[in-house]
Amino acid sequence: MSSEFGNNIKISIFGESHGAAVGVVINGLPGGEAIDLDEHFAFMKRRQGGNNPFSTPRQEEDIPVFLSGIKDGYTTGTPICAIIENKNVRRRDYNLDIPRPGHADYTAYKKYGGFADLSGGGHSSGRLTAPLCIAGGIMVQVLRRRGINLCTHIYSIGNVTDIPMDYMNPNSWSSYELAPDFPVIDQSAKEKMQDEIIAAKAVKDSVGGVVECGISGVPIGIGDPIFDGIENRIAAAVFGIGAVKGIEFGIGFEAAKLRGSSVNDPFIFKGGEVVTESNNHGGILGGISSGMPIIFRTAFKPTASISMPQRSVSLSEMKGATLEIKGRHDPCIAVRGTVCVESAAAIAIADMII
Amino acid sequence: MSSEFGNNIKISIFGESHGAAVGVVINGLPGGEAIDLDEHFAFMKRRQGGNNPFSTPRQEEDIPVFLSGIKDGYTTGTPICAIIENKNVRRRDYNLDIPRPGHADYTAYKKYGGFADLSGGGHSSGRLTAPLCIAGGIMVQVLRRRGINLCTHIYSIGNVTDIPMDYMNPNSWSSYELAPDFPVIDQSAKEKMQDEIIAAKAVKDSVGGVVECGISGVPIGIGDPIFDGIENRIAAAVFGIGAVKGIEFGIGFEAAKLRGSSVNDPFIFKGGEVVTESNNHGGILGGISSGMPIIFRTAFKPTASISMPQRSVSLSEMKGATLEIKGRHDPCIAVRGTVCVESAAAIAIADMII
Amino acid sequence: MSSEFGNNIKISIFGESHGAAVGVVINGLPGGEAIDLDEHFAFMKRRQGGNNPFSTPRQEEDIPVFLSGIKDGYTTGTPICAIIENKNVRRRDYNLDIPRPGHADYTAYKKYGGFADLSGGGHSSGRLTAPLCIAGGIMVQVLRRRGINLCTHIYSIGNVTDIPMDYMNPNSWSSYELAPDFPVIDQSAKEKMQDEIIAAKAVKDSVGGVVECGISGVPIGIGDPIFDGIENRIAAAVFGIGAVKGIEFGIGFEAAKLRGSSVNDPFIFKGGEVVTESNNHGGILGGISSGMPIIFRTAFKPTASISMPQRSVSLSEMKGATLEIKGRHDPCIAVRGTVCVESAAAIAIADMII
Amino acid sequence: MSSEFGNNIKISIFGESHGAAVGVVINGLPGGEAIDLDEHFAFMKRRQGGNNPFSTPRQEEDIPVFLSGIKDGYTTGTPICAIIENKNVRRRDYNLDIPRPGHADYTAYKKYGGFADLSGGGHSSGRLTAPLCIAGGIMVQVLRRRGINLCTHIYSIGNVTDIPMDYMNPNSWSSYELAPDFPVIDQSAKEKMQDEIIAAKAVKDSVGGVVECGISGVPIGIGDPIFDGIENRIAAAVFGIGAVKGIEFGIGFEAAKLRGSSVNDPFIFKGGEVVTESNNHGGILGGISSGMPIIFRTAFKPTASISMPQRSVSLSEMKGATLEIKGRHDPCIAVRGTVCVESAAAIAIADMII
Repeated sequence: MSSEFGNNIKISIFGESHGAAVGVVINGLPGGEAIDLDEHFAFMKRRQGGNNPFSTPRQEEDIPVFLSGIKDGYTTGTPICAIIENKNVRRRDYNLDIPRPGHADYTAYKKYGGFADLSGGGHSSGRLTAPLCIAGGIMVQVLRRRGINLCTHIYSIGNVTDIPMDYMNPNSWSSYELAPDFPVIDQSAKEKMQDEIIAAKAVKDSVGGVVECGISGVPIGIGDPIFDGIENRIAAAVFGIGAVKGIEFGIGFEAAKLRGSSVNDPFIFKGGEVVTESNNHGGILGGISSGMPIIFRTAFKPTASISMPQRSVSLSEMKGATLEIKGRHDPCIAVRGTVCVESAAAIAIADMII
Repeated sequence: MSSEFGNNIKISIFGESHGAAVGVVINGLPGGEAIDLDEHFAFMKRRQGGNNPFSTPRQEEDIPVFLSGIKDGYTTGTPICAIIENKNVRRRDYNLDIPRPGHADYTAYKKYGGFADLSGGGHSSGRLTAPLCIAGGIMVQVLRRRGINLCTHIYSIGNVTDIPMDYMNPNSWSSYELAPDFPVIDQSAKEKMQDEIIAAKAVKDSVGGVVECGISGVPIGIGDPIFDGIENRIAAAVFGIGAVKGIEFGIGFEAAKLRGSSVNDPFIFKGGEVVTESNNHGGILGGISSGMPIIFRTAFKPTASISMPQRSVSLSEMKGATLEIKGRHDPCIAVRGTVCVESAAAIAIADMII
Repeated sequence: MSSEFGNNIKISIFGESHGAAVGVVINGLPGGEAIDLDEHFAFMKRRQGGNNPFSTPRQEEDIPVFLSGIKDGYTTGTPICAIIENKNVRRRDYNLDIPRPGHADYTAYKKYGGFADLSGGGHSSGRLTAPLCIAGGIMVQVLRRRGINLCTHIYSIGNVTDIPMDYMNPNSWSSYELAPDFPVIDQSAKEKMQDEIIAAKAVKDSVGGVVECGISGVPIGIGDPIFDGIENRIAAAVFGIGAVKGIEFGIGFEAAKLRGSSVNDPFIFKGGEVVTESNNHGGILGGISSGMPIIFRTAFKPTASISMPQRSVSLSEMKGATLEIKGRHDPCIAVRGTVCVESAAAIAIADMII
Repeated sequence: MSSEFGNNIKISIFGESHGAAVGVVINGLPGGEAIDLDEHFAFMKRRQGGNNPFSTPRQEEDIPVFLSGIKDGYTTGTPICAIIENKNVRRRDYNLDIPRPGHADYTAYKKYGGFADLSGGGHSSGRLTAPLCIAGGIMVQVLRRRGINLCTHIYSIGNVTDIPMDYMNPNSWSSYELAPDFPVIDQSAKEKMQDEIIAAKAVKDSVGGVVECGISGVPIGIGDPIFDGIENRIAAAVFGIGAVKGIEFGIGFEAAKLRGSSVNDPFIFKGGEVVTESNNHGGILGGISSGMPIIFRTAFKPTASISMPQRSVSLSEMKGATLEIKGRHDPCIAVRGTVCVESAAAIAIADMII
């Protein structure tokens, strides 16, 4: 029914790519949460285009303006609203008569009866991840204060794969040299990934990727069985990012190939605590946190907007047509997807914890 | 917060594995929906154990008793409640002092402060998929009346893989010879899958699998952007099934390895309609149905309850302990998982359509 | 969309007056809440008919059967389901062709397209207050453990009025001699009220009344501004009781006749705490609890089902018809309404506090 | 948990009285709803202060800026966000150390731990009815297109009472000469009401009032039994207006004094339709619309902010203190309350119908 997420903390996202502004209302955060706006701005920077050849050349300052709910650096306890004005809008880049393959142009057109503001993807645009990250950047700070930290890296681009995160020892995560705009653990993989992207871009194409996210410090016992487990909630949030086509927790799809004796993580005592000896379950058993790091991976399809000519249809002429997209687009959205995944996960976890 | 799903049609599941009954309340179905109880019973049969060597020997009649909301074979429009009494309960099978690896015993114990009725897995037991299927079986009938059909098969067991469904032509689905209790398209794969299961069982082990589900006839324009897209909603429902660790739509994780030019599905006119030439997107673009069949795959980990001795801990003695599970369990829950996945998908789609 | 209430604690009511059972699912209570079933049964007794000339002669044992969520006298933390079987059903008492004035027969008939099980009022029957009270009786115990107590009395029947509760000093409430089946503070008013009811009944008529409810011990700061204030939430729950046509908090409608200088309650220090010198605001300022007792009154219309001949229409013959209701009905539902109001209030408060 | 309302159409209100802006997000309206912005502005004008001696002298232009969801005069189908900047802010008017009696200053202070932006009442200010009216003004247009019209007048101020609306024949409503800024049916009552207000204001006091609202054209069968009936939903919305202390439907509290034979509205055939001969039930039976006009009255307490000296406490000095409020306030908020009540009702009805 809505562009809204959450039970305890409600996130309501609004705006169109080429409208006056995009923004978010955040409802349910208690009063007195310190929000460091400099840190928040650095977080927002991670999703911003235009910084490198791997992202969109659309230059947006993307500085959120807080209209309510934050005063003197602290949450007031009442709803937060933050907006980002859309300044750098080039409506002429879009030809709405010929829907872009792989994008929501056609489905949104049919859904809203032709009234939707579809320019630039409208409400379905990747630009709507900006308000997602506004909320995510706040939640990351709120969670860290409660001992919960998130770490996100590019797991793969095309067929190039990074080292997986350490599933057992989150203390090691801080040793990863993750560049904010291209976070990879294995620096040799990083170069190969960038080559993949450049090669795709060179032929006016795009390439997909997988993002891996780890969450440490979630206390045992969070999440509810059946429909409100951690997997359900994170999945429901993460599919809120356009271009995500799959999600898996712990060893995920790999588990489907294995036997129980290999997948089950034995319980052991360690330092007086019950922990598991391995973490194939990704920190979630029966929807409930086990105290082990939560680990999940998200599959991003290649950016749907590619510059090479594509076959589509002209809706006005009711015949086949060739589309050449002239807009400004990332050749690999998985790169900027990292901070979006982290935001979605932070929102989902905060909703369950606060 | 709860074992509940849905915006328009609310599904509320209750019960513990070894309690008096499990059941479901379904809220929001309009009056006058014909419900064929014989067909419903056949649907329930698909998840029932004890029929073959691939399922649990726990024999339950599992006949739902409708307490409200259905009269003379039609929904009344007011809440439906159906329960299944738990008759064949063997509490002694469970040793709650030693939590079963891979199961929610320990996380639920910590969550509920020791008050949960954890015998047999309690509210986290696979038995709670029975009320899920009660609701699912009703929704399948409700959807079919609206031209929407679901088809589900075992996509893989261990390393044995079935033929994928036809992503383009759902009319062909009816030609699959899908046995209700072991639905596989390629009959030669079926035998190999069963061998995998028997081999695992022979060594007191279990094996994982992947379930593929197709949904035809969903009209274009269903689903909302951002957090209430079809992917979000199906994922939120499907992770309600224990042992599910991953989900992917269309070509899913495969898309992350490819280029946009291979993944984008061109739009074409066919019979006066705009359709896509291929269906890598799995019937969903920007969270909204495209009119093409919706396709998704779900990864089931191997049954956590295996009979071979496993390392765990004794919570009372606070030291390591060996666990030998004597309960009655499926060697491969993905088999019975098919009807659960179909139920979850039907519930999610019905919630968005009605 | 649904017969459901609550954000944190969800109450889902199901059943029809003459169906197999009525019941309730309660979702969200933590594990470990002691529930005294004897006390709960005594609470349920308060709404039960057949005890005195002021209530319905329909004799129901109304003993809830708990199917899940309570074990050994404690909540398990997972959903509670309780049902009451409908044993004493006399469907022939109802003539559905001629809708009863003042009842939901006709509106429900139109809403559900003729499929609703309307016998005895179906899902709109006063019988559905039984599951409301099952939930209410649990919440009353849960709240008392947190220092919150509810007190409810008949404020008026027809034109006979009881003494109002003490709005300032809830400790005095325990001194009221409130009979469970006819709770009135002023015993002389009690007799006059009973005379009113007997007089109405003698002429096959019914009479209305007002119920007053006080809630003590709600800590300051509960409730949220705008749509989730205490008034909004209690009102939303209390209108869940059939026959309720009005609600007012503190001095309510009286305040509309007065000046601010008379209505505003001055703040004072008392025992080191900020309290108000009077309690015209009924314990709620800006939707948020002030720490003073919460006070509200609920208007019950007279029982719609009266035995005297009434003018209505025959739906089959499409002409005027005279209706003589032969069912078993209370001459004044406000009497049994007291425990229903208390239940609704307890549910609303528990939802905001837990 | 939140400043949000609605199931199908979600209204999320944000902002503080003296913050950067107040605003609203509206989620769930279909695309293609024409919104006449001139008419909308005229609607907003009805709640605006400063037009007459009966309202606040705080002059605000209160022109909503639409950031999303409306394009070329039509809804796009995606979330609408509208904001009103706070320009005329005089923070020095407020002394937060001495909480104003009858206002949320103290309860909000305790709730939010001192972090709330309480200047001018903060998020609890009457100024937050501006975004309520933004949403209400849109819904009024959306409903009229569906044949549903709302009519609201001042029913009483102090002890001066207007003629009640015609409960049976909504066509007559258009003949009422209702001034937008002081809507009264009986022009002689109007003058007396204004005298009441002027008299109260002259002694630095305020006065309460009752607002009556009628809704015509709601088709039979809207609303759900138990917790989602029309009464529950309208009440939950209307208590979102500060200063509302009571609500009653149809003849409301009067019904509690009467007998069933007087209150029950007989069914009759009229023009081939089943209607009721009178409308004591206010258009709602069992929570469901009967097709008759929906009628309800809302009690407003006198404006809490009065200029005469009041007793309160100094929170810093922990002793009694005298408060003299210097802000700009209405002497009778029921006057501007009319458009707020109409907005809340329109929101509630739209949520149930669309």
